[in-house]
Amino acid sequence: MVSKSNAKFIKSLQLKKYRKQEQCFLVEGAKSVLEVLNSDYEVRQLIATEEFISNNPRAYPSGLEVTLTSAKQLATLGTLKTNDAAIAVVHMKPQQEIKLPSDEWAIALDNINDPGNLGTILRIADWYGIKAVVASKETADFYNPKVIASSKGSFCRVNVFYTDLSEFLISASLPVYGAVMEGEDVHSTQLGQGGILVMGNEANGISEEVLQLVGRKITIPRYGKAESLNVAMATAIICDNIRRSQ
Amino acid sequence: MVSKSNAKFIKSLQLKKYRKQEQCFLVEGAKSVLEVLNSDYEVRQLIATEEFISNNPRAYPSGLEVTLTSAKQLATLGTLKTNDAAIAVVHMKPQQEIKLPSDEWAIALDNINDPGNLGTILRIADWYGIKAVVASKETADFYNPKVIASSKGSFCRVNVFYTDLSEFLISASLPVYGAVMEGEDVHSTQLGQGGILVMGNEANGISEEVLQLVGRKITIPRYGKAESLNVAMATAIICDNIRRSQ
Repeated sequence: MVSKSNAKFIKSLQLKKYRKQEQCFLVEGAKSVLEVLNSDYEVRQLIATEEFISNNPRAYPSGLEVTLTSAKQLATLGTLKTNDAAIAVVHMKPQQEIKLPSDEWAIALDNINDPGNLGTILRIADWYGIKAVVASKETADFYNPKVIASSKGSFCRVNVFYTDLSEFLISASLPVYGAVMEGEDVHSTQLGQGGILVMGNEANGISEEVLQLVGRKITIPRYGKAESLNVAMATAIICDNIRRSQ
Repeated sequence: MVSKSNAKFIKSLQLKKYRKQEQCFLVEGAKSVLEVLNSDYEVRQLIATEEFISNNPRAYPSGLEVTLTSAKQLATLGTLKTNDAAIAVVHMKPQQEIKLPSDEWAIALDNINDPGNLGTILRIADWYGIKAVVASKETADFYNPKVIASSKGSFCRVNVFYTDLSEFLISASLPVYGAVMEGEDVHSTQLGQGGILVMGNEANGISEEVLQLVGRKITIPRYGKAESLNVAMATAIICDNIRRSQ
């Protein structure tokens, strides 16, 4: 079982303050834990049920600290309602500069607040083969357990870089597209081989400062009466249009 | 303020059993309540803060029973974490038969379990001007407060019909498309003027019985490494392709 002091340490990582201090974060549930064990992240310790260990005997390196526990204790340690598999405590990686070849796409997030939306956007980026996400400093924390969980393992494959978004866009050499309510119809826009797609805040859209740096404003055409689409959905639809037009 | 017995009644509508018994459901939050007041649903009573009433003086018919309350009490009555506006108790409508002209699209849901996914799919259908959703009997309850909330008002405009999905598809005269992991690339598929798009369960996809009735299996092409897309996202992307190809 997990000791009291270790339990306290693990639970503390639900908070950004302690994640920053310890430079560690939590990965929860069988699928995500298997993905992170199989990635270039360094796992510091693994808390797992006997079942998970016996089902995945070769999933982790022999030197790794493994603590056996019950599903009941896992639920108290982590943020998932149910978790009968495992929690990994993982070392953060230093921020990697984003490099953007002229034939690649990146997604830029202007203050996406909801961790579930950020995680879902990572999953979409991963589906559409987009490896770089640039996020404003106010965007939800990449290492938030809800971001990790909703990315369904894609956090291992998408590089998120937090920076001053305006500065980044000013010095970027790729064309900048932004999703707005009234822009060019994305169905008839010629989207190039490479570019940066800016997606704005859930309630307020793209901020005025960033909008001035958007070269082409694009819009998903509406055929019915819903007022809006969720930002993750809009990202998915635009990414599909980007790939479709190539 | 809301009386104890009325509070008990309102809270009971969080459960399907009591919704069925009372033939009523809950609509929560300013936006959804304003939409339902403006729809052809019959509102039985409105519980609202003074602020909501003074901001929306002409939003409700003069004969409607209105109870003033506090944001604090609203939060205890409903399912939203915060609600400083209103809750409406609304009469269910009888199921409306789905009529499918040959130039319209419908979405058929084969056991969508998650209420948030169902609500989001209604919002997508509404955005893309799809008015008919056919749902298997095991699909989440349309009147679940989470479905209503996540539809962001679109529940007022999309008709959901619960039925035996196989029987429905057997007697349908429109072409039946189904989203699967390995089918025709939706980017190059000629999607017709009208059809039925079948979306399957979150974990298991389209059931075997229903799959036999799918005439054309379609797939969203993947460019990266994510294992899957969420069902609501996949619905959004395919609907976009349907409209784009018309």
